[in-house]
Amino acid sequence: SENIVLIGQALKNEFVIPEWRVFCSTIEKIYVEAKSNTDGKVANYIPQLSRYRPNYWGVSVCTVDGQRYSIGDTNVPFCLQSCSKALTYAIACTEKGADHVHKYVGQEPSGRSFNELSLDHNKKPHNPMINAGGILTTAMIEPHLKPADRFDFIMNEYQRMAGGDFIGFSNATYLSEKDTADRNFALSYYMRENKCFPEGASLQETLELYFQLCSIEVTVDSGAVMAATLANGGICPTTGDAILDNDAARNTLSLMHSCGMYDYSGQFAFKIGLPAKSGVGGGILLVVPNVCGIMTWSPPLDELGNSCRGLQFCEGLVSNFNFHNYDNLNYHGNTKKMDP
Amino acid sequence: SENIVLIGQALKNEFVIPEWRVFCSTIEKIYVEAKSNTDGKVANYIPQLSRYRPNYWGVSVCTVDGQRYSIGDTNVPFCLQSCSKALTYAIACTEKGADHVHKYVGQEPSGRSFNELSLDHNKKPHNPMINAGGILTTAMIEPHLKPADRFDFIMNEYQRMAGGDFIGFSNATYLSEKDTADRNFALSYYMRENKCFPEGASLQETLELYFQLCSIEVTVDSGAVMAATLANGGICPTTGDAILDNDAARNTLSLMHSCGMYDYSGQFAFKIGLPAKSGVGGGILLVVPNVCGIMTWSPPLDELGNSCRGLQFCEGLVSNFNFHNYDNLNYHGNTKKMDP
Amino acid sequence: SENIVLIGQALKNEFVIPEWRVFCSTIEKIYVEAKSNTDGKVANYIPQLSRYRPNYWGVSVCTVDGQRYSIGDTNVPFCLQSCSKALTYAIACTEKGADHVHKYVGQEPSGRSFNELSLDHNKKPHNPMINAGGILTTAMIEPHLKPADRFDFIMNEYQRMAGGDFIGFSNATYLSEKDTADRNFALSYYMRENKCFPEGASLQETLELYFQLCSIEVTVDSGAVMAATLANGGICPTTGDAILDNDAARNTLSLMHSCGMYDYSGQFAFKIGLPAKSGVGGGILLVVPNVCGIMTWSPPLDELGNSCRGLQFCEGLVSNFNFHNYDNLNYHGNTKKMDP
Amino acid sequence: SENIVLIGQALKNEFVIPEWRVFCSTIEKIYVEAKSNTDGKVANYIPQLSRYRPNYWGVSVCTVDGQRYSIGDTNVPFCLQSCSKALTYAIACTEKGADHVHKYVGQEPSGRSFNELSLDHNKKPHNPMINAGGILTTAMIEPHLKPADRFDFIMNEYQRMAGGDFIGFSNATYLSEKDTADRNFALSYYMRENKCFPEGASLQETLELYFQLCSIEVTVDSGAVMAATLANGGICPTTGDAILDNDAARNTLSLMHSCGMYDYSGQFAFKIGLPAKSGVGGGILLVVPNVCGIMTWSPPLDELGNSCRGLQFCEGLVSNFNFHNYDNLNYHGNTKKMDP
Repeated sequence: SENIVLIGQALKNEFVIPEWRVFCSTIEKIYVEAKSNTDGKVANYIPQLSRYRPNYWGVSVCTVDGQRYSIGDTNVPFCLQSCSKALTYAIACTEKGADHVHKYVGQEPSGRSFNELSLDHNKKPHNPMINAGGILTTAMIEPHLKPADRFDFIMNEYQRMAGGDFIGFSNATYLSEKDTADRNFALSYYMRENKCFPEGASLQETLELYFQLCSIEVTVDSGAVMAATLANGGICPTTGDAILDNDAARNTLSLMHSCGMYDYSGQFAFKIGLPAKSGVGGGILLVVPNVCGIMTWSPPLDELGNSCRGLQFCEGLVSNFNFHNYDNLNYHGNTKKMDP
Repeated sequence: SENIVLIGQALKNEFVIPEWRVFCSTIEKIYVEAKSNTDGKVANYIPQLSRYRPNYWGVSVCTVDGQRYSIGDTNVPFCLQSCSKALTYAIACTEKGADHVHKYVGQEPSGRSFNELSLDHNKKPHNPMINAGGILTTAMIEPHLKPADRFDFIMNEYQRMAGGDFIGFSNATYLSEKDTADRNFALSYYMRENKCFPEGASLQETLELYFQLCSIEVTVDSGAVMAATLANGGICPTTGDAILDNDAARNTLSLMHSCGMYDYSGQFAFKIGLPAKSGVGGGILLVVPNVCGIMTWSPPLDELGNSCRGLQFCEGLVSNFNFHNYDNLNYHGNTKKMDP
Repeated sequence: SENIVLIGQALKNEFVIPEWRVFCSTIEKIYVEAKSNTDGKVANYIPQLSRYRPNYWGVSVCTVDGQRYSIGDTNVPFCLQSCSKALTYAIACTEKGADHVHKYVGQEPSGRSFNELSLDHNKKPHNPMINAGGILTTAMIEPHLKPADRFDFIMNEYQRMAGGDFIGFSNATYLSEKDTADRNFALSYYMRENKCFPEGASLQETLELYFQLCSIEVTVDSGAVMAATLANGGICPTTGDAILDNDAARNTLSLMHSCGMYDYSGQFAFKIGLPAKSGVGGGILLVVPNVCGIMTWSPPLDELGNSCRGLQFCEGLVSNFNFHNYDNLNYHGNTKKMDP
Repeated sequence: SENIVLIGQALKNEFVIPEWRVFCSTIEKIYVEAKSNTDGKVANYIPQLSRYRPNYWGVSVCTVDGQRYSIGDTNVPFCLQSCSKALTYAIACTEKGADHVHKYVGQEPSGRSFNELSLDHNKKPHNPMINAGGILTTAMIEPHLKPADRFDFIMNEYQRMAGGDFIGFSNATYLSEKDTADRNFALSYYMRENKCFPEGASLQETLELYFQLCSIEVTVDSGAVMAATLANGGICPTTGDAILDNDAARNTLSLMHSCGMYDYSGQFAFKIGLPAKSGVGGGILLVVPNVCGIMTWSPPLDELGNSCRGLQFCEGLVSNFNFHNYDNLNYHGNTKKMDP
């Protein structure tokens, strides 16, 4: 029946991106241009990441009405790493409400490094997209369950956001992360000293869960559906499953917009103007609200930790399409930008 | 002829806010609720500001198709103060292009106080909405003119943005600002040491011009038209005059969105999700892109320097209307919010 | 035979403090004056410290030729806490040499709080008198021994420095310290991330040993002998036992001089001009080089963590005696200060 | 008659350095060793400094009983630069008393760069040996005199400290300093904002006087007498003129000890243990309390701004003589150090 709806929309030309073929060929063009970009270095603080081949490069798009297009290394699993912070925050907001979540974590860009040993003037992490904040949002989800059940619960939510597409787990990455986690332990002890944790949360268990979530694997295809769920206000476009509260989706996009790209967040908001979250595994989870979700993946990172090819793709996207947050201002003069 | 267009649109119900009466009565309701808010303190670092009566409270709206509504103290002049930074940046971007402007000033929220004695890691001010950045954008506008002519030029641009509505100048404020400007002098010498100024710029002249721009007066009515010019991509909706480049308007909105409300900017972006710029005189220049410009004015400020009644008004606005940047996510569930 | 030496010196009036009775009665006068000082608050971050009675007040002096005087609560055991950092550093320097020790820890006052989460520009703790540095010097002592043997070794060195006088251990304090050690864990993980630890050191074992050393107990009498050992270039004046290298004693005094009194160190060096190390248990280990060691103990602390009565005693001492580091400048004019 | 006293002392072997010839030949040996050191770079932020030849190298000693020895470039004038801060502080303390001076400036090492734009937690400069503190102590001296008379007064005090030896003024340096003074202007405006200046002080006049004091010239010979005046408790050893209060001299030595060598101060106190003040012109004013004053001069500076040859000389000095602050600890074991 879903197919019938799709076909019906197609016949009536009612899709959010009516000119799908033009759109896809433009995406392909941007993909190809970025492919020749050999900048950046693969993360190497753990062996599992350093083994990613630098020429991996994949992009996948899923629109809010379920149309899909992907190109390149589309079925190689990679770890979400920090991309998971956006998803975890969305789940925490859905479970507990934003007011509860933000008792423990702020909403401000930190103006500092993602793993900086500092808290804001309220003695809270600046926002949920940096490590300190990500650890605390992890602590909030189903705190009364046992570790195994908490992991299962979140894994299941991720799976639902991906519409049942591939979700895996790299145990080797998890073990390595746990083993090279001095900064995150330092952050967590510092937060515990400042009474940042929700009552009853175990520092050790929270960190282990946090590392596990960083070690969850997706492909660009499954990641694109996750992003599309955010673009679609929390309803998975391929299944119709309502996973996140509308407000939780809105809040997640707000914070991805302002804080999702490490120290490049302000420039990204300025130039690209779209909510995004990058991870040290080379993924970028990109959302065009009400239009589509996109996942890009290429391991080589720039100095700030964002995927080089991924960033180039984002730039190509907004220079070809009217996707920048403030792109649709009443226009005077000429533009070559498409409204797809 | 303009009226004929308006009437024509009205007849065809083509206005951006079709239900104008409902909209205005909601605005009135929000205005009235905020009126009883007696929080905050009037700025008192110069006598001219401290003399503002704390019960002044005015709001004015101007839509991108020129419909207007205002209530309260609508014709009392007040100084733009930091609101001018957004306008100056918009003019600088139109004159020189964003690439040139951002050679000298960044695009990141600073995570620090608006007048902090610090530069970003490139030895540039973090963004043009804080004092350091505002001083540099001032330095870029018509640098080869004489001081009097530079002031006239910018005054004239402000007047055009306001569609010819009231623009004044408080010389007493200017003289006081200049006299209590230790921090701005400290910032400017620090920037000059770090070679932040455009070549040939005079520190003294630039600061004087900067203080003059802070001392320019508007009413909420003229300020709303200025905001509407930004909402309308740079074209004044009451005159049709194209003042700002479309890109300059877009960039201005991006930076107002992320950096316009002092240390509250991140929370404002999260909760309100609209571009805004506040000033220590009690004004807030608020933009609903493609819909309307709004100016609110009430002198009592909270601890971060934002007008208390103005903030309450912004909250009322987004709780009544679908105006938050990510409010229009495909909705599931019930909402009481209007799409005006 | 020792007594015979003492008597011989006494007969020949060859003691370092020839006018012993005058000296002791002055010490008594300063003691009594400080007794009425009721400023400060007893540390309460662990119950064991909060139970110290605020009116405890004891002072003990031991000269480099073994003369002794004490007054007040002279036989109540109290925990060394941070006073142990000076002793541990002295032992580490004797064991490994200053060059080795300072590969891992700096010599600069930090200009920051004693437990600040920061390292110097070489990614080392600023000095061995703050927590971070104290943890690292602990890591250096007999690293190849088992935990029990390492503790025994250091305990024995402390005992030798105290000339066999009372040394105890508060296991309850140790267990409490270990239990409220978030900041020290944060510091240690941060240091491990920055590869600050000597090769092979265990973070967990080092911290446990560090907490144990903080929990070692002395009385003002035994503490004064320890201080006298430092004053005497590393030879215990009551036993003649050479415990510390001369250089190690010199280096310890240098760093106590500049960094021993938490954030008050600079002012203490300026006003008092003597090497000292205070602890949160209320003790101050004070050294008058080549003259005597003094231990004062009174639990109420000022805001910077130094014993209020202890500080007043130090001020009384240098206003009565020529003990300030630069007090013996060729004098012109009148002074009431004694050269005891 | 002075000579007769000297001869009398010499005959009775009562000089502070009895073995004068041995001492001088050791100084010569240290001088020669340092001469081959070609590390460092001559300061070049103003042309007047950059013109100093890098091979200039001179040392002069003046004992507290007026014995003198000098070697190398002993009669080339060079600017005191920051060395003047120690002298200015000594004069301010003599004029106003330390309590008054320290209402405006602290006594703590800053743990930060000498010209850092920061104040301590009391909103005062950390100490009088950094720029901010130096500017304020300058403001305190004879504030009611006219600029010319203030300069004359201080110049005269400097001359008295130098026992009438050469004191000059480099007007070209002064004009250049004034012209490249952005940081000092930034610091001063920041301090004025924080109400750091004594009442009635003019920012502009104070800075001009400060730059003038930095531009005062000495030779190593006249500088050594200045240092000897400090070593001698404020009485010039060559004239017997009592210039500084004993307390002022003591306080100056305390702060030179802890804060005199820029960011190297802590390490210098640890390794050398003597009060010293270096300047960017390549001079080091070194004091051996109650023994002698030493001035070294060589323009090439290390990265922290201290003269490379000068530092090597200081190291040579304390490795040959018992001059380190804590060197005279009762000694056990063998030493090769002389007690000259």
